[in-house]
Amino acid sequence: MKSGLSFLIAALRCEIDELDQLARTSALVATIGRLVHALQRERGLSNVFLASGGCRFAAQRAEQTHACLLAEEAVRACFDRLEADASGIGNGARLFSRIAWVLPGLAALPTLRSRIGAMELSPADATAAFVKLVSGLLAVVFEAADGATDPEISRLLVAMFNFMQGKEFAGQERACGAAAFASGRNDADRQQQWLHLIESQERCFQVFVEFAGGAMGERWYANQSPQQLAEQERMRRIACAAPAGVVLDPELSSTWFDCCSRRIDAMQAVEEQLAADLRLICEQKTARARAELTAHEALLAHLADDEGTPSAAFFDESAPAQSPPRVMGAAPPYGRQLERSILDMVQEQSLRLQAMGEELDTVRAALNERKLVERAKGLLMAHRRLSEEEAHKMLRRTAMSQGRRLVEVAESVLAMAEYLPPQPVR
Amino acid sequence: MKSGLSFLIAALRCEIDELDQLARTSALVATIGRLVHALQRERGLSNVFLASGGCRFAAQRAEQTHACLLAEEAVRACFDRLEADASGIGNGARLFSRIAWVLPGLAALPTLRSRIGAMELSPADATAAFVKLVSGLLAVVFEAADGATDPEISRLLVAMFNFMQGKEFAGQERACGAAAFASGRNDADRQQQWLHLIESQERCFQVFVEFAGGAMGERWYANQSPQQLAEQERMRRIACAAPAGVVLDPELSSTWFDCCSRRIDAMQAVEEQLAADLRLICEQKTARARAELTAHEALLAHLADDEGTPSAAFFDESAPAQSPPRVMGAAPPYGRQLERSILDMVQEQSLRLQAMGEELDTVRAALNERKLVERAKGLLMAHRRLSEEEAHKMLRRTAMSQGRRLVEVAESVLAMAEYLPPQPVR
Repeated sequence: MKSGLSFLIAALRCEIDELDQLARTSALVATIGRLVHALQRERGLSNVFLASGGCRFAAQRAEQTHACLLAEEAVRACFDRLEADASGIGNGARLFSRIAWVLPGLAALPTLRSRIGAMELSPADATAAFVKLVSGLLAVVFEAADGATDPEISRLLVAMFNFMQGKEFAGQERACGAAAFASGRNDADRQQQWLHLIESQERCFQVFVEFAGGAMGERWYANQSPQQLAEQERMRRIACAAPAGVVLDPELSSTWFDCCSRRIDAMQAVEEQLAADLRLICEQKTARARAELTAHEALLAHLADDEGTPSAAFFDESAPAQSPPRVMGAAPPYGRQLERSILDMVQEQSLRLQAMGEELDTVRAALNERKLVERAKGLLMAHRRLSEEEAHKMLRRTAMSQGRRLVEVAESVLAMAEYLPPQPVR
Repeated sequence: MKSGLSFLIAALRCEIDELDQLARTSALVATIGRLVHALQRERGLSNVFLASGGCRFAAQRAEQTHACLLAEEAVRACFDRLEADASGIGNGARLFSRIAWVLPGLAALPTLRSRIGAMELSPADATAAFVKLVSGLLAVVFEAADGATDPEISRLLVAMFNFMQGKEFAGQERACGAAAFASGRNDADRQQQWLHLIESQERCFQVFVEFAGGAMGERWYANQSPQQLAEQERMRRIACAAPAGVVLDPELSSTWFDCCSRRIDAMQAVEEQLAADLRLICEQKTARARAELTAHEALLAHLADDEGTPSAAFFDESAPAQSPPRVMGAAPPYGRQLERSILDMVQEQSLRLQAMGEELDTVRAALNERKLVERAKGLLMAHRRLSEEEAHKMLRRTAMSQGRRLVEVAESVLAMAEYLPPQPVR
């Protein structure tokens, strides 16, 4: 027959388990960030390689493939470690389901690479393949953020996810621009897509700044060199503001690629800093919870000598007693006073957990936008027999042509769900 | 190095763990229901005992204490089992924290009982003590419902929680009426409280019917005998519609108590039925998931022979293939077809998990009302230095006097949070 204190301890143990688990998923997120970074670079190089008819970046491509393989190995090791000890993962089923989705993509990379090497793909198709894989990896990060049970850590994971997503839009912009410059011209479609990528990345970085907190936000702004930004903006203008069909200087593809790459590499440094912050905060919280656990366990051992006092404090009508401040090394309380102080501890823990739950709800709301888009995609896939990419393209096209945000279009689609034709029979 | 299929299996294992955990928390909920039922009866008997100056129900009280002890033992055993294997409990920390809160209440019961036996408490104080303990037990049920990760099970747990909460209001009404009749008079305050209890229980039963589904709802309506309802309504009218201060026939206290008890006992039968439904649905879902797991594991074993096929299907631009319907006992697919069919399985699982998540969000919204009330109470406790009971009474008094629902008052309190005086210094 266990006492209230035992369950106070059990609650604390659950918290510690969750923090351990969060430390592991945070490590996974950092590792995925590195692989995504490597793949983004490989995508950019492959793009220029294909668009230049195989003239540019052949050697760099081979080098980058090697870097990708190393990063992939690290991610796979993280996946396997997570699978080996799945206990206590909040949304384990969803997280593993995302991982299951992404692994066939990693397995298909060698085939993709040899097709690119043999010039069998268009730059657009090669880009689409890498985009698909990276989006699968980001979906794993999203689930890690969505499953976090500690609001402070969840906040950092939301910041991290949005930063990675913004960086991915920047990477897509690099590929899009590299292909445009390398081919020597731009068209209206690509210009519109390009502008959309600029806008999407800016929105992601806004959410990042909001959630990562002031210091991190300032580091992010300080991180971007004004000269470099000016140069990138100049090239954006050359390609996007010019009338469609204008001839672009193919020599600019390297300049553009290098300029974007410097910016993206700098982003990678911010990401590493975020990952380090995450690790630190997990460690601090775990250490604090463990210290509390030790104190509670000592009290529980002491309590064993104190059994048999008739309990009554629970039904006392008085407001919660103000227990005297506990002094380190002082004799622990006993009898009625001990009982009262355990009730206070339970009350305190319960209020703290409640406050955490409320804060968590607030943080999670930021993830809902993405969920709405996913839901709308699912609806289109079911009702119009589209693939996921087709559904996404359809939403994005509507957003671009109506000048609305993707999430707004998703909301409209969901709102008019009942007007969609019935699900076709397979 | 694990494949996508391995993580599909890992996701399924997580689902099975969660279902096992839900089966255990569902069993806990049913056991708590029985203890609450026994305590409600003891509360009613104690009330009449105290209000009648010790003349009535002395023997029944002793008997009922014994029934309570047995039910308490069963609940404690459930608590201990849960603590012994805490892994995989979604919101373990919060659930255990609620249990930690309630255990000192159970430990204080013997003292409460001897004070009632010695006539040291007023009926109101005795009722308040039992109400506090029952509300602690219901908070455990609430956390169990809030932590459920399967929408169908979550739906039944929300129905169960609301039914138990409604039954508790019915129990409080029994105690309130028994005290009024036994004392021979009623006053305006008690009349108002009484009407509030009637309204609160009706709202709970509405939510119950909404979430338990049609068949269960019909069983609930069929369960209530019209004669009995008419008799209860007649006595409600005698006590509540009469001008305050009117003399009530003390003999009616037994009639009232028996009439309410028959209704509450019938509720207990509905609750047991709900608990049985919960158990069944957990079993069915677990069996289904386990069968799927076995099939996937067989496929994984088969796949070991098939390693080495170059993967490419992931980047195919085509919409998801329509895999041929799988025939029991037919040879499993191989090569490209196998790869395609695994991608389809992953896709299917991911869509199913997403749909479950959406459904879960909808169900959980029903729990938010209670969270708002808890949050408003916490605010009042912090800003006005009130105990939890005082905060609750304050909210309820406002609701009664303004003719608004408790949740509406809670929302107002939260909305005007910044106008509250700053937190007093302790």
